[in-house]
Amino acid sequence: MKIYNDKIIFFRETLDQKLKNIYTTGPDSLKYPINHVLSGSGKRFRPILALIIADMNGVSLEQALPSALSIEILHNFTLVHDDIMDKDVLRHGIETVHEKWDINTAILSGDAMLAISLKLLMNSSLPNRQKLIDVFVQGLLSVCEGQAIDIEFENQNDVTLDSYKNMIYLKTAYMIGLSAQMGAIVSNLSDKKVLQLKEFGDCIGMAYQVQDDLLELFSDSKAMKKSLDSDFVLNKKTFLWVATKDELKDELNEILSNFKKNKDSTISNLRNFVINNGIKEKAEKFIEYNIDRSRKIIDTLDGDSSFLNYFSDLVLNREY
Amino acid sequence: MKIYNDKIIFFRETLDQKLKNIYTTGPDSLKYPINHVLSGSGKRFRPILALIIADMNGVSLEQALPSALSIEILHNFTLVHDDIMDKDVLRHGIETVHEKWDINTAILSGDAMLAISLKLLMNSSLPNRQKLIDVFVQGLLSVCEGQAIDIEFENQNDVTLDSYKNMIYLKTAYMIGLSAQMGAIVSNLSDKKVLQLKEFGDCIGMAYQVQDDLLELFSDSKAMKKSLDSDFVLNKKTFLWVATKDELKDELNEILSNFKKNKDSTISNLRNFVINNGIKEKAEKFIEYNIDRSRKIIDTLDGDSSFLNYFSDLVLNREY
Repeated sequence: MKIYNDKIIFFRETLDQKLKNIYTTGPDSLKYPINHVLSGSGKRFRPILALIIADMNGVSLEQALPSALSIEILHNFTLVHDDIMDKDVLRHGIETVHEKWDINTAILSGDAMLAISLKLLMNSSLPNRQKLIDVFVQGLLSVCEGQAIDIEFENQNDVTLDSYKNMIYLKTAYMIGLSAQMGAIVSNLSDKKVLQLKEFGDCIGMAYQVQDDLLELFSDSKAMKKSLDSDFVLNKKTFLWVATKDELKDELNEILSNFKKNKDSTISNLRNFVINNGIKEKAEKFIEYNIDRSRKIIDTLDGDSSFLNYFSDLVLNREY
Repeated sequence: MKIYNDKIIFFRETLDQKLKNIYTTGPDSLKYPINHVLSGSGKRFRPILALIIADMNGVSLEQALPSALSIEILHNFTLVHDDIMDKDVLRHGIETVHEKWDINTAILSGDAMLAISLKLLMNSSLPNRQKLIDVFVQGLLSVCEGQAIDIEFENQNDVTLDSYKNMIYLKTAYMIGLSAQMGAIVSNLSDKKVLQLKEFGDCIGMAYQVQDDLLELFSDSKAMKKSLDSDFVLNKKTFLWVATKDELKDELNEILSNFKKNKDSTISNLRNFVINNGIKEKAEKFIEYNIDRSRKIIDTLDGDSSFLNYFSDLVLNREY
């Protein structure tokens, strides 16, 4: 659908433009790193989701932008702090803040970005801003808790599929749900519809994260391979890891233990392992289940939801 | 005034009790460090100031507590992150989070504390909560900017007295002003009075910080000496440093350069230097000027302000 594609491109350009100029005052040691981060080439999936919902409900871009921008900056705040914790040196192809500057600058820039994202919601002409702030703060706590659990998992070798799902819900899905929710709140939809759209976003988010775990192993994109490296180093728990049956864990660990010696053969062995043992299929079924759920939620909404369907196809057909 | 003293003790006990139980759910890797920080023996000056203003205006403790607690947790969030940046290992006599756990835990606990402090303001029965959130977020940005400038100063040897004042205003005074402001907003005072009380708090805050700079050098308390050590290591700019005339800077630097070799004689030489060159007097005059300003603001308020006067005497007569 060319019209949807054009709109999404326009949304992304508008967001990129606004993000570049979001923090022009303040000390250089905040201004430069914040500008560096927000000038990066993120996909802007989260704010675009909020803007699509506003658009579907006839809300002007001007009214929807502050909350969309606040979500993107919240997301980038988590990236800046997570990159310190995970010792990642690249993000979207550019140096991370703690790598280009130092850890102190990254901590403080992250903190300031959070303040900036909140300030966007302080604009008193924003419809339902009290509700927006309420859900935004809940989302902030959720992402902190999800990240904490993810780090706890690094030292746990008995992580269950259920606790993994809870972790990705808090760390990733919640914020994509929040994006839809804020788009719905700005659109002045009923509380029931707001929650339905939150749940729609949650489903997309769950599917998105497990798809990420799959892409890391099966995609040939550089960014995904780098991400896989980082996961191995930190002993991160992915869907593929937690979905491996107990009796297969020894075999899996043996494959993983060769990673430092020979990356390529480890990846190849790992691909065969997850395919042959039905783990890849399990992940794909989980993604499908969540997409189905998201479609069913869309079907219960009145009006034309084809833009939302177009968006979720776009997100879930990505290759990196 | 025994009645004021008793009230302040009661406020502090109530705050300590609430803070201990503020975050009981969530992952252990957040719960334990957050509880560790909030069980510390802070003076609770900031929330007590908010509670005093509410008390003066007949607002119940119950209604005033959420915003008072949110300020204290915001303050503690800044301490947790600042302690990482300044590599401080002790705070209020107990280990800092990054020292007891690690840097990742400290970054994330700080972030979660900020979320928790904001959540306290989400309680919909809070009077004027929109205004509270507005000023709170502005305070958050201010403290980030102040800390950024403070760190920038570490590598600058031409910091002026004016830029120093701007830094301590943003980093320290603003949040004490915010405490008074939030107490005033909870009390449903007029916008004019809210701003007057903010300014009152700002003045107390400016005096408090410069008094801190003096106490570090002249107090014999362990905590203050430790703080002085940390300042020397980081080349922190204090009032005493920025108020030293250009023609005396060489002499000052020579005294400072001996710090590593002989701490005690350096401190003694430094004390003599700031006394003999009128720098101590300049600091004391600055403190006095701000106290006078705060008194004048109090005088313009209607009603009995003796509780506020009692509080500022208490803060400014502290010995550590």
